[in-house]
This record gives sequence, structure tokens and C-alpha cells, in this order.
Amino acid sequence: MSRIYINEVAPRDGLQIEAAFVPTPDKIALIDKLSATGLARIEATSFTSPKAIPNLRDAAEVMQGIRRQPGVIYTALVPNLKGCQRALECGVEEINLVMSASESHSLANLRMTPEQSLAQFAEIVAHARGSGVFNNASLSTTFGCPFEGHVDEGRVMTLIERLLETGVQGITLCDTTGVANPAQVKRLCQGVVARWPDVPFTLHFHDTRGMGLANALAAWEAGIVHFDASLGGLGGCPYAPGATGNVCSEDLVHMFEQMGVHTGVDLDALMAVSATLPDLVGHDTPGHVVKAGKADRRYAMPERG
Amino acid sequence: MSRIYINEVAPRDGLQIEAAFVPTPDKIALIDKLSATGLARIEATSFTSPKAIPNLRDAAEVMQGIRRQPGVIYTALVPNLKGCQRALECGVEEINLVMSASESHSLANLRMTPEQSLAQFAEIVAHARGSGVFNNASLSTTFGCPFEGHVDEGRVMTLIERLLETGVQGITLCDTTGVANPAQVKRLCQGVVARWPDVPFTLHFHDTRGMGLANALAAWEAGIVHFDASLGGLGGCPYAPGATGNVCSEDLVHMFEQMGVHTGVDLDALMAVSATLPDLVGHDTPGHVVKAGKADRRYAMPERG
Repeated sequence: MSRIYINEVAPRDGLQIEAAFVPTPDKIALIDKLSATGLARIEATSFTSPKAIPNLRDAAEVMQGIRRQPGVIYTALVPNLKGCQRALECGVEEINLVMSASESHSLANLRMTPEQSLAQFAEIVAHARGSGVFNNASLSTTFGCPFEGHVDEGRVMTLIERLLETGVQGITLCDTTGVANPAQVKRLCQGVVARWPDVPFTLHFHDTRGMGLANALAAWEAGIVHFDASLGGLGGCPYAPGATGNVCSEDLVHMFEQMGVHTGVDLDALMAVSATLPDLVGHDTPGHVVKAGKADRRYAMPERG
Repeated sequence: MSRIYINEVAPRDGLQIEAAFVPTPDKIALIDKLSATGLARIEATSFTSPKAIPNLRDAAEVMQGIRRQPGVIYTALVPNLKGCQRALECGVEEINLVMSASESHSLANLRMTPEQSLAQFAEIVAHARGSGVFNNASLSTTFGCPFEGHVDEGRVMTLIERLLETGVQGITLCDTTGVANPAQVKRLCQGVVARWPDVPFTLHFHDTRGMGLANALAAWEAGIVHFDASLGGLGGCPYAPGATGNVCSEDLVHMFEQMGVHTGVDLDALMAVSATLPDLVGHDTPGHVVKAGKADRRYAMPERG
């Protein structure tokens, strides 16, 4: 039986764009509940400037407040050297650096060019060396850019090569605005798995156009076993109002478990945590399985009229 | 470039469960607009008893009122011999018979056993012989039953064989309550394509658990080229309140076109028709692409703060 590994990103990628700040104790309680479900990895917060992402201004308190579950990797987004220092002080096990594959998204989102990101990553990785922390990098707009459109696959391959040269150990390929399609995903994933068989690649999908699980399936068929996902499908795309966000963790776990692919996750426990989200964030969430129940749900026969 | 064929089921499968009756002229206008989008097939209505499905009590008026577009196949659901006679009087080009793979769903939904359905189909097909109408049969609960759970694949294969013996020419395999997973879909589709290479199989999915497009992808990878889909994702599952319904036509077309698989459908035209649905049915629809725009949508770079 094959196995996949889920990186739960709701505490960071989900909560960062919510309209309201989620109180620190609630964040800690959420992460502690997630830690008990068998998830492989949890992106707990982001050590960004509080001005840039006010919702995650409590990064250090969160990292210090959570109960670390043995076997779960706690990772945090790190935008720069200062963020890396703060993250290391809190004892994160993994840092996640972020750059964009496309020039215009890089400028709009990070206010620097991809070249500048790569130079900064080298500096951060050098700083982190010796700390024992795992260095992951997320490559935004891998499958397309909301400003430029098409992103060349050759360019993506070159950026992966450059990222690995900086000392980054794992790479997340992100479909930031939900534009990837399964044929494109399969082709790129086959390419990276063939070229860098020892690098752990994580795939990050959005369900913006309904293709989230289809893309995850295509990536898995190409040999990918690490996936980002967000509880309840929290998170979203600032460019597509009303559209759904990150691929939903419990929907992803449900699909793969139904297929006989082991996720390590207790789906009932995960669904129970997801069911608490509407109270936490003040709105309905886009996930399917929490509303419909698992595929093995049975119903009573209707009474004859 | 490979090609798939879409059977648009919103006018029948979608409108039949709406809370409100859609006026006959609006139904006709909807079908006429759909006819102009390049869809291969449209399930226009159901010749069921007006008491059973009041929303489709205007089946004959609808069939007689629409403008038939050359190249589009107009099909209608037919529950019994009387329905078949009414459908043939209206000059439908295809009739769609419905039975359930599982005993309990058959009893709950059709008030007869699968054996009784098969006997009735033989009678209907014999009656329709010589009319030139194409006989399709839909097999509900192919991938699982809301009452019994698991449906044996061997049983499905036997029922397909029995259906073909009645003279049915095409078969639709239906995931009635959205329980199928891509591994199961791929296995069954590979099985039926290998055993009956000349029979046109259509796959009918629901997005109840977010797997609609992933299942369509799996079926296509197994050689299936005919798909049911519903504009806006109309339709639904009476057992899962709040859950999304049929796989959404424009989302399905969008995914396959993005993959380079030709659908024959003008996606912009289809999305324009879908955008009229909320006014027609009085509520939002679950489709993604109408809200988010197509994957090639571009955005202006944000102004620097």
C-alpha cells in the first residue's frame, strides 16, 4: 500500500487572509488538535513582519505555546533573514522560504525579483546551517501567473536547480492561483521526479477552478507523495473573489484513503477539527466531505409513501 | 488531439429537484441557448408521471418547443413504456432508461427490483425498435449505494451484460451519490472498455465529495470519452443536504480544454449561459469557473502602496 504525507497549512496559509484575527489561544488549540490527527507536517505560522500580515503577528507565541507531538514536523514561513532568526529562536523544525517563478508576481507579492529571492535564500540557508533545521522553499506561480499567464516549464526547472544550489533541501511547487491542469501537473511532476529523485517535492494546489483533487491525483500518479492542504479548504485567492481556496485537507485525505492510499491521518478526527472552523473564523468553509459525510456513509431507506 | 463528448443534463437532472417549477418558456430558452454552445447531447426532460416529478410535467411542450440544432442529440429520460410512447411522439432522438445496480436503491427510487427493470427495458426497447431512436440505459449506484454501501464490480459487469442483451445500445455508469473514487473508476472503466470496446459508455459523476473532476480524469485515462455534466453543477443528492451536485459542465469542459482535450464546446458561450442560472433557479450554483474565470484570466498588477 502506498503512502502520502500531508502538510497542513490552514494555521498559516488559511488564517493569514481571514478578515478577523484569530486569538492566539485559539490558534494554539487548533494546532494542538491538528497535531493529534496523524498529519505529517503542520505549517504553524509565518515569521513575517506584523505590519505585512497582522493576522500572524503572534508567530512566536504560537510556536512557543503549542504542544509538539513527536513525529509531527512543525514548519513556519520565513520571508527573510530576520524571520529566520526569529523562527530558529522558537525552535521550528523546518523553515519554508517563498519565491515566485514569475517576475511580476515576485514584484507584486515580495517586492523583489526572483534573482533577489535566490540571493536571499543562500544567505538564509547559510545562516540556518548547523541549526539542524530543514530548509524548504515554495515556488509560487509554478503553473501560471495571474499577471503574466503562462510560466515556461524550462524556467521552472532552472529555478529548481538554482534553489537546490542555494542549499535548499525540499521544494514545494505551488499552483498559487488555481490555474494548473492535470496534464500540465503530470508532465512537470514526472520531469522533476526523474531529474531529482532524492529531493522531496511537495505539491500545493488550489481548488479555485475545481481541479484541486484532480491535480493531486495527477501529481500522485507521477510519483509525488507530499501534499500541502488546508483544513476546510481555508485560504484563498485574493484575485478571485468567491472562489474556493486551498485544496481541502479532509477532502484530499478522504480521496486518497478511499483509493487505498495510506495518509497516516485519522480522517474522523480531522473532520471533527474541521467542523469547528466555522465557529473559529465566522463563516462557512468550502470543504465537501464535512458537509456530505464520507463515501461509506449509509442512509436509512425512505418510508414508503 | 483527443476528443470528448458532453451530455448536458441540467434541464432534466438539474431542474427536476429544484424547489420551484421553471416556467416552460424559460426551459425552452435555456435548452436553445445550450444547443448553440457545441454540446454533443442534451438531456432535455423526463417523460415521467407529472405526479412523480412535477417540475418536468411539461416534457412534451419542452420537446416540441425547442429549436433542434443539427448535430446535437436530444435525449429524454423514459421511466416506462408509456413514457417511451410519449417521448417517441415528440420525436426524441435518444431515450434514456434508468435502473439501479443495487437492490435497495432500486426499490427506494423506482419501486421495482433490478430484475423488473431489465424485463421492462426489454419491452421498451422492443417497442422503440424501428423508430430509429437510440436506446441508452443509465445504471444508478454503479459505484456504491447510499443504503447498501459497496456495490460489487462483478455485479455491475453482469448487469451491463444483461442490459446489452435487452437491446440497449449505450450505457451510462452513474455515481449517483458521489461516492466513487478515481482508483475504483479507473479499474471499472478499464474493465468495461476492454470487454465491450464498441459500446458507448458515458460516465456520470457527482461532486458531492469534491472528486467529480478527479473521477472524470480517471475515466478519461481509462479510455472513456462520453460524460454527463450539469450546467453550473445543478442537481444534487437528496441524501446530502448542502453538498454539491452533478459535476459542473463548464468546469469539466474547462479542465479538459486546458489539458488539450477537445470538447467541441465554446466555453465562453457555455459560461455565459451558466451565468444566467442564478436568476433562473433563484439561488447560487456550485460551479467554480464561472466565479473564478478561466485559468488564462489575467489580472492587472496591484498599485504599489
